[in-house]
Amino acid sequence: MELWYTEKQTPNVGITCKTISTLVVEKTNYQELAIIDTVQYGRMLVLNGMVQTTVKDEFVYHEMITHIPLFTHPNPKTVAVIGGGDGGTVREALKHPSVEKVYLVEIDERVVENSKRYLPEISCGLSDPRCEVLFQDGIEFIAQHENSFDVVLVDSTEPIGPATGLFSKDFYSSIYRALKEDGLFVAQTESPFFNAELIRSVYASIKQIFPVTRLYLASIPTYPSGLWSFTLGSKRYDPLEVDEEKILEIDTKYYSPEIHKSVFKLPRFVKNLLESCE
Amino acid sequence: MELWYTEKQTPNVGITCKTISTLVVEKTNYQELAIIDTVQYGRMLVLNGMVQTTVKDEFVYHEMITHIPLFTHPNPKTVAVIGGGDGGTVREALKHPSVEKVYLVEIDERVVENSKRYLPEISCGLSDPRCEVLFQDGIEFIAQHENSFDVVLVDSTEPIGPATGLFSKDFYSSIYRALKEDGLFVAQTESPFFNAELIRSVYASIKQIFPVTRLYLASIPTYPSGLWSFTLGSKRYDPLEVDEEKILEIDTKYYSPEIHKSVFKLPRFVKNLLESCE
Repeated sequence: MELWYTEKQTPNVGITCKTISTLVVEKTNYQELAIIDTVQYGRMLVLNGMVQTTVKDEFVYHEMITHIPLFTHPNPKTVAVIGGGDGGTVREALKHPSVEKVYLVEIDERVVENSKRYLPEISCGLSDPRCEVLFQDGIEFIAQHENSFDVVLVDSTEPIGPATGLFSKDFYSSIYRALKEDGLFVAQTESPFFNAELIRSVYASIKQIFPVTRLYLASIPTYPSGLWSFTLGSKRYDPLEVDEEKILEIDTKYYSPEIHKSVFKLPRFVKNLLESCE
Repeated sequence: MELWYTEKQTPNVGITCKTISTLVVEKTNYQELAIIDTVQYGRMLVLNGMVQTTVKDEFVYHEMITHIPLFTHPNPKTVAVIGGGDGGTVREALKHPSVEKVYLVEIDERVVENSKRYLPEISCGLSDPRCEVLFQDGIEFIAQHENSFDVVLVDSTEPIGPATGLFSKDFYSSIYRALKEDGLFVAQTESPFFNAELIRSVYASIKQIFPVTRLYLASIPTYPSGLWSFTLGSKRYDPLEVDEEKILEIDTKYYSPEIHKSVFKLPRFVKNLLESCE
């Protein structure tokens, strides 16, 4: 007997994966959570029926949401990760020797607990002494801070359910206040093929608040359309002005100094999308 | 009642699309052919159970297999497309004012006939007076020519069935002879996530024959993993030495002069794959 996990990524298209076993299915206080072991991608974390991360392709998302901003800031010491309870973003942030403290602010304790138990390759950074895990609403956490962080990474689910507010202009203004005077932030901002309106709206909002606003792309097989966007807002540093020669060598599979700037070179339909925000 | 078309892209992962109707299902002399109308991607051409092209995302593949080589050659006049019976690559090649002649060499007449009837947006170039359609084995066609083409585009199916020989070193040697003294060629070379061994083998073969060998990437939602590779072999011109300022403006949705070089900047795992061929 073959069991396949099929996810509707939009109402009209989906991904289907042959499974080995279903390890967890539970309803937390915030969402439905599952951990499924698949042949192609290894174990995957699914929230509200959407794949969040898989053991085999998580490196793309976690490296790309982390190293672009952390190598754009010349000396990031204090980092806040909003969402990201699987721990992959924390693991990547801790590869930067300048980083002294990473706050992981996850609303759903069960995401962290299940990730620690079933996804140790991803969650390993959560037990590092530099990491502090807080089970709190990310919007509330950011609102409670001022002039506090060098980098904020918004590692959220889709803009439905608890994550909706993480895609609002008010939240980006709140991040602006929570960042130090030369701070910057990145948010995951969905697929340019499927979420053009969302990207346009987020980019326009961030651009009204931050002097430097940039969008970059990465290829993530298990995410809808396979092409994913990240939007960066920065008070001072521009990722396109980084001297790649000076980027430290760290252990990565997707990110490299060589692609640090090229990921901002956008296919024409994506560039046109952003130009309509000018 | 909802009907979904589900394709196993590997034995363990697939894509599934909600359909509107199935327009064609037939067994040709060479393969099984279907044209299915889907909600997300419009009409799609399926050969041997693999999506070849869809109305909504075909622009990525067809622009990227064509414009990178045609803007690398300073004056491409004679182009041969091997495979590509849907006509999308021909349509893109004809956007280059220097192009005087495009040979479309498709082994399966039924691909062309069905594409003309059901995929007019894609096949429109096939009726252009500069295009000559030949129903012939591409390997045979290339072997019959010497010093004939400025650019050859290998727009093949997966390396199974009739296309197997199109991924062989003998074929690349044959293309070398068929090209003019400053000619170049590109082949579609599958997904770096799923076909690492194939890419390594093709890249190593081409590198043994052509002085300039380069691999580049594009994001194609309906292809396995969503990330696709193209490998270029050139006798003289290097895509990385093109002056982007001088690239002609043509109507595209993915390709632009701005991404002409950045698509050669590879994620580390892809770069490592190629370095193992050095």
